[in-house]
Amino acid sequence: MNTVAKAGLAVVLVETRNPLNIGAVARAMSNFGFFELRLVRPYEPSFREAVSAVGAAPVMAAARVFDSVAEAVADCTFVAAATGLSHREPSQPAYRLERAGRLLRRHLQSARAAILFGSEKHGLGNEHLQFAQMLLHIPTRAEHESMNLAQAVAVTLYELIRQPAMARSSGAEAERAGSAALERATLLLEEVLQTAGHTDYGQETAATLKTHEFVRRLNLSARDAAILTGMLRQIRWKLKES
Amino acid sequence: MNTVAKAGLAVVLVETRNPLNIGAVARAMSNFGFFELRLVRPYEPSFREAVSAVGAAPVMAAARVFDSVAEAVADCTFVAAATGLSHREPSQPAYRLERAGRLLRRHLQSARAAILFGSEKHGLGNEHLQFAQMLLHIPTRAEHESMNLAQAVAVTLYELIRQPAMARSSGAEAERAGSAALERATLLLEEVLQTAGHTDYGQETAATLKTHEFVRRLNLSARDAAILTGMLRQIRWKLKES
Repeated sequence: MNTVAKAGLAVVLVETRNPLNIGAVARAMSNFGFFELRLVRPYEPSFREAVSAVGAAPVMAAARVFDSVAEAVADCTFVAAATGLSHREPSQPAYRLERAGRLLRRHLQSARAAILFGSEKHGLGNEHLQFAQMLLHIPTRAEHESMNLAQAVAVTLYELIRQPAMARSSGAEAERAGSAALERATLLLEEVLQTAGHTDYGQETAATLKTHEFVRRLNLSARDAAILTGMLRQIRWKLKES
Repeated sequence: MNTVAKAGLAVVLVETRNPLNIGAVARAMSNFGFFELRLVRPYEPSFREAVSAVGAAPVMAAARVFDSVAEAVADCTFVAAATGLSHREPSQPAYRLERAGRLLRRHLQSARAAILFGSEKHGLGNEHLQFAQMLLHIPTRAEHESMNLAQAVAVTLYELIRQPAMARSSGAEAERAGSAALERATLLLEEVLQTAGHTDYGQETAATLKTHEFVRRLNLSARDAAILTGMLRQIRWKLKES
């Protein structure tokens, strides 16, 4: 999963009080390439005039206003709510941003999703949380948990566009293996394991699925996929020779 | 590297114009547990009175003012500068935040480091960049690169405190393989490759090193290390049998 399907994500601000914060959110969205801003009952209905959202005019102009969270997320099949950890016992699963981001990216591959952010003062209430399948929390200090609204949005969107492979080496080197290369490595691995009589990896579909998932979890670079394929070819040759 | 040595990092704001931005930066620092704020020639010397940095009074009170970048980073052995990508040809290496964060975390394990952030209008000039060993850029869109100052600080600090293992599953499950497990897998892989007559992975030290690095790059979970070891044991058995 190299790039997130940005067009499928709606950022939903619920009862935001300060119009400047709406502008700051729009800027962060534009910085990271997200353009679907939705507002549920903003405190200042004239927020569009008030803001100075540097460079984010298109996001602000396209922002839509809704009367309720239900209407704002009606077309989204997956809804996450950004909350703190401290003050309620949620019925939904609550995940740190690192994991919530991964689940959101996965969902966005095939469908629309929304992230709810509450008001500066009160965050999200239970009447809003009921629309969320998942709670998301940014790992701030317990002693000072509450973030500035637009900073919270910026950090959340950064997690979505972040590319883990980039941490390992500089740009070009870190290019991830394409699906054809991964498929090649997977088929070779299956063949080798079958030839070697590996019990868990016999002829059953479940075992094949497991091999697929295993190779994908390795998150190989293009180079490492080539190295692995080379190793497996040699092992296959030796196994067949004998 | 599970936690970053936060006390060793100084956030250095150079010629910040808007005192509200200083307050917003202080809040982000406090949220993520960084307390060393340094200001080089802030535009409003009376910035401390102007700000409303919710919850970040300790960071603001301890903030120190300097006349030059040189003085502000005098005690730091590693300095990163947050810049855009577009407008200069740096002599230092320039890394995306994912990689820059990794290098900073590594450095902070044993020494002090600083990150420079420029003014809202002009960013950092060459006269400031000369003090940096590394340029750091947040992966924003080329068409709208420039972030709000405090949002840029928030995203950067989040990258530093981010825990990759948290993305994979909830807490305990995602446990990474220990070095003993990785060593076992590596030795098995070497044995299998030697038995199979893999040319690049013969008896030389260089090849052994390559195998070590390859296995470490896979960043295996404890479970996947066990799966890999099981596969390799079976392949070894089959190769020796014949």
